[in-house]
Amino acid sequence: MHILIIGAAGMIGQKLATALVANENVGGHPIDRLTLADIVPPPTIAGPVSQQSLAVDLSQPGTADTLLADHPDLIFHLAAVVSGEAEADFDKGYRINLDGTRHLLEAIRRAGRQQPYCPRLVFTSSIAVFGEPLPPAIPDDQIHTPLTSYGTQKAICELLLADYSRRGFLDGVGIRLPTITVRPGKPNKAASGFFSGILREPLNGQEAILPVDDNVRHWFASPRAAIGFLLHAAEIDTGPLGQRRNLTMPGLSATVADEIAALERIAGPRATALIRRQPDETIARMVAGWPQNFDARRASELGFTADIGFDDIVRAHVEDELNGVLPF
Amino acid sequence: MHILIIGAAGMIGQKLATALVANENVGGHPIDRLTLADIVPPPTIAGPVSQQSLAVDLSQPGTADTLLADHPDLIFHLAAVVSGEAEADFDKGYRINLDGTRHLLEAIRRAGRQQPYCPRLVFTSSIAVFGEPLPPAIPDDQIHTPLTSYGTQKAICELLLADYSRRGFLDGVGIRLPTITVRPGKPNKAASGFFSGILREPLNGQEAILPVDDNVRHWFASPRAAIGFLLHAAEIDTGPLGQRRNLTMPGLSATVADEIAALERIAGPRATALIRRQPDETIARMVAGWPQNFDARRASELGFTADIGFDDIVRAHVEDELNGVLPF
Repeated sequence: MHILIIGAAGMIGQKLATALVANENVGGHPIDRLTLADIVPPPTIAGPVSQQSLAVDLSQPGTADTLLADHPDLIFHLAAVVSGEAEADFDKGYRINLDGTRHLLEAIRRAGRQQPYCPRLVFTSSIAVFGEPLPPAIPDDQIHTPLTSYGTQKAICELLLADYSRRGFLDGVGIRLPTITVRPGKPNKAASGFFSGILREPLNGQEAILPVDDNVRHWFASPRAAIGFLLHAAEIDTGPLGQRRNLTMPGLSATVADEIAALERIAGPRATALIRRQPDETIARMVAGWPQNFDARRASELGFTADIGFDDIVRAHVEDELNGVLPF
Repeated sequence: MHILIIGAAGMIGQKLATALVANENVGGHPIDRLTLADIVPPPTIAGPVSQQSLAVDLSQPGTADTLLADHPDLIFHLAAVVSGEAEADFDKGYRINLDGTRHLLEAIRRAGRQQPYCPRLVFTSSIAVFGEPLPPAIPDDQIHTPLTSYGTQKAICELLLADYSRRGFLDGVGIRLPTITVRPGKPNKAASGFFSGILREPLNGQEAILPVDDNVRHWFASPRAAIGFLLHAAEIDTGPLGQRRNLTMPGLSATVADEIAALERIAGPRATALIRRQPDETIARMVAGWPQNFDARRASELGFTADIGFDDIVRAHVEDELNGVLPF
C-alpha cells in the first residue's frame, strides 16, 4: 500500500513514519511506498520502505491534487498551525487549519471522479474543540464550544470529515489527542509546555519552571500512545463508527503531583529538586479552564488504549529520547 | 440605522422587511435605510423607510465587500440553499451555505480595519445541526452531529459566528429555527412539507396528502414567531450569551393530530375531510429521526417566545395569508 503523511516533519509525523517503516505493514497490508509531506522537507527514515520527501504548502490550491495524483491508500493528515499561532495570526490559522484541510478533502473527492477511490483518512483533532463549562469527566457526547480559533478550526474539520465520509468520498477517522507528554525537544512558550518541561528538563539535568499548583489535573498521552492511536485509527473497521467519525482518544488523567512522584521514583530526588515553583496567575487561570478528565468510552470500546501511568510515560521517554540514560 | 437583509427575497426575508418597515425602528433606533439583497432582486416594501433592492451572489468573492461598503449597523443573514438542494448538489450547498457566509464574515472583518466596526449579525441556523440519537427533549448543550450536508454547513457557520464574535469582529447571534408552519405559498417537495400542507391546502379548499401517522410529533414555529425571533435577536444584550452565540429557539412541540384538531376547531370538518392519509414509508422513516421536542431554556430566559398552540398558528395564517377568509 501507498501511505501519505501530511505534516510528516513534525514530532508526531516523524515518529509515525518511523513506526510505519519499522512495521513494514498496516493491518497486514505491506507498505510499498511512503510519501512524507510538510511545509519543510521531512527527513526520510532509514529502513526498507521506499520513501519520497516533499516540501509543499497544503493551503495553496493545487497542492493537494499533486499529493493525491497517485491515489494513496491511506492518508494521515497531521499538519496544523498550533493553538497559540492560530490565535496570534487569525488569517494563517484559518488558511492552514481550515482551508488546507478542505483542499485535501476536495482533492480526495476529485480523485474519486476519475476512478473508484475512498481512502482511509486519519485526521488529528484536539480536545480544544471543548470549552467551558466542562464536567469533571467529559463524555463522548459533550457539545463542542471551542474557546480558541484553533479549537474552532478543528471542530469545523471534524464536521467536514464526517460529512465527506457520510457521502462516501473518503473513509475518515478523526482522533482528538490528549496533551502529548513528555514532548521531546526544546522547551517552548506554549502555556501547556510545563506539563512536559517538569519531566523533560530534570531528566536532562536542567531546571524546570512549574507555574501552577501540584494539584492541577490534566489529560495526557505519551508520544508512544499517540502513535498507537494513529496506527489503530488506520486499521479499524469504521462500520461501528456509524456517522460519528470523530473520537476522543483515551488518555491518562493525572495531576502535576502524579508527574513529580513518577519522576522521583524513576530519577530520584535530585531530579525533582530541579523543579522550581514559580506561580503564574495568568497560566493558572488558563489551565483552570482546560479539560481534566474524559470518559472516552467509544474509543476504548474500539480498542484504542491509553498509557497506564506516569511511570511508564517517563520510562518510555528515557528509552526513546535519552538512550536509556538518566542524568543522576 | 442602516439594516442589511441578505436573503431578503425569501418568505422569511420579505416578512422581516415588512415588519421592519412597519415598525420603523429596532430597539428604539429609527431605521434610516434598508438594503434588501438576494440572488434575485427582492421586492421593496410599501412604507416610510428608504430601501434599496440588490440582486447579488454572496458566494462570489467581492460581493460581500460591496454590501458592507456603507457599514450597515445591523445585518440579517438568511440566505441559504435548502436541505434537499444542498444534499443533491454538494458543490452548490458548500458554495452558498459555507463560502457565502464566510465571505460575509470576512467582509465584516475587513470593514473593521478601516474604522471601528462591530455590527450585530443575526444568522439563521437550523435544528438540522442535530442528529440521531436524540433525547425526547433536546437540551441546549446537545452535541451537533448533523446527518445532512445542510446541517453540517449550518453547524460550521455557527462555529465561525462564535469565533468571529469572540474575536470582536462582529456581534453575532445565531438562531436555530423550528420547522416553519404554516409555510405560505405552493406545496413543495420537501419531506417536511406535509406539516404545512395539511393545514394550508384545506384552508384553500384543496386536498392535502398526509404521509405519516397522526401521532408523529415535531417542533414548530409560525412565520410570525420566526419574525419575532429575528427582531428580538437584533435587539438583545449579547453580554449574557457569553461565548455561546447560537441558540435553539423556543417552539411548539405538537403532533399531527394536534394540527388536525386545531384545523377542525377553526375551519370545521369539511376542512379536515380534505386531508387524505397516504402512508409513505420513506418519509415516515426520515421523519422518525427528526427532533420532536427541545428544552430551549437559554433562549426562553433571554426573552424569545414561542407560539402557544396550533389554534393561534392556524388563525395567524388565515389572517396573514387569506385576508381572514375561511373556505367553508
